[in-house]
Amino acid sequence: MTKVVVSGAFGRMGSMICRMVTETEGLELVGGIGNQAGTQFNVEVVKSEEIDRLLTEQQPDVLIDFTIASAAVTAIQAATRHHVGLVVGTTGFSDAQQRQIRDAVEGTVPAVISTNFSIGVNIFWQILRNAAPLLSEYDIEVSEAHHRHKKDAPSGTAKTILSILDEAVGEREKVYGREGITERKNEIGVHVFRGGDIVGDHAVTFAKNFESITLSHRAYDRAVLVKGALIAAAWVHGKLPGIYPFSAVLDLES
Amino acid sequence: MTKVVVSGAFGRMGSMICRMVTETEGLELVGGIGNQAGTQFNVEVVKSEEIDRLLTEQQPDVLIDFTIASAAVTAIQAATRHHVGLVVGTTGFSDAQQRQIRDAVEGTVPAVISTNFSIGVNIFWQILRNAAPLLSEYDIEVSEAHHRHKKDAPSGTAKTILSILDEAVGEREKVYGREGITERKNEIGVHVFRGGDIVGDHAVTFAKNFESITLSHRAYDRAVLVKGALIAAAWVHGKLPGIYPFSAVLDLES
Amino acid sequence: MTKVVVSGAFGRMGSMICRMVTETEGLELVGGIGNQAGTQFNVEVVKSEEIDRLLTEQQPDVLIDFTIASAAVTAIQAATRHHVGLVVGTTGFSDAQQRQIRDAVEGTVPAVISTNFSIGVNIFWQILRNAAPLLSEYDIEVSEAHHRHKKDAPSGTAKTILSILDEAVGEREKVYGREGITERKNEIGVHVFRGGDIVGDHAVTFAKNFESITLSHRAYDRAVLVKGALIAAAWVHGKLPGIYPFSAVLDLES
Amino acid sequence: MTKVVVSGAFGRMGSMICRMVTETEGLELVGGIGNQAGTQFNVEVVKSEEIDRLLTEQQPDVLIDFTIASAAVTAIQAATRHHVGLVVGTTGFSDAQQRQIRDAVEGTVPAVISTNFSIGVNIFWQILRNAAPLLSEYDIEVSEAHHRHKKDAPSGTAKTILSILDEAVGEREKVYGREGITERKNEIGVHVFRGGDIVGDHAVTFAKNFESITLSHRAYDRAVLVKGALIAAAWVHGKLPGIYPFSAVLDLES
Repeated sequence: MTKVVVSGAFGRMGSMICRMVTETEGLELVGGIGNQAGTQFNVEVVKSEEIDRLLTEQQPDVLIDFTIASAAVTAIQAATRHHVGLVVGTTGFSDAQQRQIRDAVEGTVPAVISTNFSIGVNIFWQILRNAAPLLSEYDIEVSEAHHRHKKDAPSGTAKTILSILDEAVGEREKVYGREGITERKNEIGVHVFRGGDIVGDHAVTFAKNFESITLSHRAYDRAVLVKGALIAAAWVHGKLPGIYPFSAVLDLES
Repeated sequence: MTKVVVSGAFGRMGSMICRMVTETEGLELVGGIGNQAGTQFNVEVVKSEEIDRLLTEQQPDVLIDFTIASAAVTAIQAATRHHVGLVVGTTGFSDAQQRQIRDAVEGTVPAVISTNFSIGVNIFWQILRNAAPLLSEYDIEVSEAHHRHKKDAPSGTAKTILSILDEAVGEREKVYGREGITERKNEIGVHVFRGGDIVGDHAVTFAKNFESITLSHRAYDRAVLVKGALIAAAWVHGKLPGIYPFSAVLDLES
Repeated sequence: MTKVVVSGAFGRMGSMICRMVTETEGLELVGGIGNQAGTQFNVEVVKSEEIDRLLTEQQPDVLIDFTIASAAVTAIQAATRHHVGLVVGTTGFSDAQQRQIRDAVEGTVPAVISTNFSIGVNIFWQILRNAAPLLSEYDIEVSEAHHRHKKDAPSGTAKTILSILDEAVGEREKVYGREGITERKNEIGVHVFRGGDIVGDHAVTFAKNFESITLSHRAYDRAVLVKGALIAAAWVHGKLPGIYPFSAVLDLES
Repeated sequence: MTKVVVSGAFGRMGSMICRMVTETEGLELVGGIGNQAGTQFNVEVVKSEEIDRLLTEQQPDVLIDFTIASAAVTAIQAATRHHVGLVVGTTGFSDAQQRQIRDAVEGTVPAVISTNFSIGVNIFWQILRNAAPLLSEYDIEVSEAHHRHKKDAPSGTAKTILSILDEAVGEREKVYGREGITERKNEIGVHVFRGGDIVGDHAVTFAKNFESITLSHRAYDRAVLVKGALIAAAWVHGKLPGIYPFSAVLDLES
């Protein structure tokens, strides 16, 4: 049995994680951290100043954090003090925050950190990693679509796509929009669609020689992210200290 | 029989028009205008300073112009002096040039002028004109894709799409790229893909309420443009003076 | 305030309807019909033999039925005995059952009956109704995709698409698969994709002359059906007796 | 310089090959085989009964054959008698014909044989070969679209896709259409679209867990096939006897 504490327990993502932990065999919800004290799915939720007490009393094996960067850093540092493993899906860390996390985690606890915990997206990244070197002479255009309320552009998932492409075909300039008289150079066009309730589409198109090849991923439900996080929570419990990509959980080479 | 003179007779588009005129029953190629004097498909091609002589000698019924804005204005003005009908697919006219064309054409010759002579695109515009008012509460995103050498962004066809949308759902701001922290307002996102040899894709997506509707058009061959221009040439011969959209040729309400 | 009774109150669709009724201003959940007696969202649920008692006691304005054909007929007939308006999203009625429903409803109660209560799908149908006559000379291919457990092929929504096409371009043979040496005639190809958890995609492609036009609809969440049903419930309350399509609720011409 | 003879020299595909050979540096057109004797692009075209004379007189290095199965076998056997290398894009060979070709070629001449000579399609196959093992637990649906006159269903390219999938995820039943009450098993749905002038689209969709991944290829012009054949012709000249896939020419592992 893996005992789990969840950050942001009253938030949209956090409460979905809490519920799905309680429904998953092998996982036990033992506490939450939230912007207010209270109870969620029959466990105690504490404010961040009470984290240490909660972790001492409940002795969880894993802390799951899908919140915002500043809150996540606080929770991660607390977890490392109590030797609690980590599953982190929060994005938007600054370079300094990333260093803080690395410093806290290294040598103390095992941590799975990823910009996307969907199994399909991680397989998609691996497909792209294998495919792009075969298409290094092609023009590349990347697009992603999300609901109208998503603020960061492009998505963290698309940023990972761009860094995979940079590694595979050499770094190219990113162009985030074209208007007026333009001239396509050795660049990657990045297109960010926003509208309605689109859950999450990503596509990479390679074009050359009167042909095009498109690799695309579509998500129909945010629950896929939670499902991946729970798989990671069960996996990370008992691993050696260190930072692992989610692809390690899935046993994809990366 | 409709006698035809073609502008840009040695260019990529113009020479395709010349060839297809010679292959089309009911049309006869009688001359060309080019950046050099010479012969193309067995007819005389003259430089622009010789247009008047050519039109006097050959007495064509229609001049077809798919060139660039400045050259097109010169050819159009010459055609109106000789009462020669017009089929104009050139785009990128300034407001001043559009006025010059209107002044020259009105009351003198019949002219079919359009940013796209594909039959399918014109039907697509009509579908969009009918559909958009039903979707006025939806978020709208427009995308188009063309070959890597196309310079103007977005395409003339996409610009017509945008003006159809403005008329149908009220004018909205156009956003030509999203990067960083963004907030979607009552806007239209416009996405210009460029790569390889893509012939011409256009799509409009409407999103709301966990649903999306996409209307799209794809061209596989630039010959569709020429085909439409030749249909327009046969149609315009003998019509009353005035400017006609290509949708009038196709008998689409517009 | 519109008082609502829901059929199949313990089922996947019915319980979602119950929940969303309780969350919707202007609607009040007053009872349910289920395969067992009990309580759901604080209202009494009765088995079908107790429908008359429930309708007498609760005096609902509207009964919403998304169940299976035989159960729906029973519930509809009871509703008409008690002058309760109807919203019916159940599909798969036999011709005989459709007659029974028509006989029960006519002159007694207002009823909104549709194979799809998504607003977007109903707008999509209207777009198609307007567009198809412009494309009557094009080859037509229809495709739809749903989750791996969906049994009927094609979907009810696709069947409505096919009947719209028949009306717009003249009846054509439907071809549900091609294998071996084939010859495309004046037919409509129908392609049924099944896999994973796909919520519901529908597309119609028209192809001719090196061009294609595609009209497509995508659903991201089954909740859109419930939302449409609730709009219909508020609308149908107080209308004159008769059967109405959902497009009448949306004020789409049909 | 590689001297080339082309089969089907008066056909649609063969005459395009002849023309493009004459336009390609390093290749020289020295003769053709056709359904009648004559001249094409200034070289002699002979009927099949004169092949041996032609090959003796012209001493070509390579014969390119994109015709039909029976004619191709005759031409291939003649080429092997004269130690002329082969590029074969003809499809639809029976098992017996495939044996005849193998017997003729082995130990005598180098031959590149493929169902598709587009570079992009061959890269696409390789991407699929790498990707499919990562997606072996996903439902798979394959679709392809071609112009209304294409008779074989599915395309040779799609058949290669299916055999790649069989190898990668284990053989599954192929279902070429769904209608009525169906039940998806561990199968691959195959969808053959035919209409208009579509040049050639192929797509493989993998779906599971509220996600889908789609890999797709689109061709805009049949000239890509010829281009690949000419690259193969230059490559095969001087190679050791044996049958090579086109992926060997492109240096893709296969």
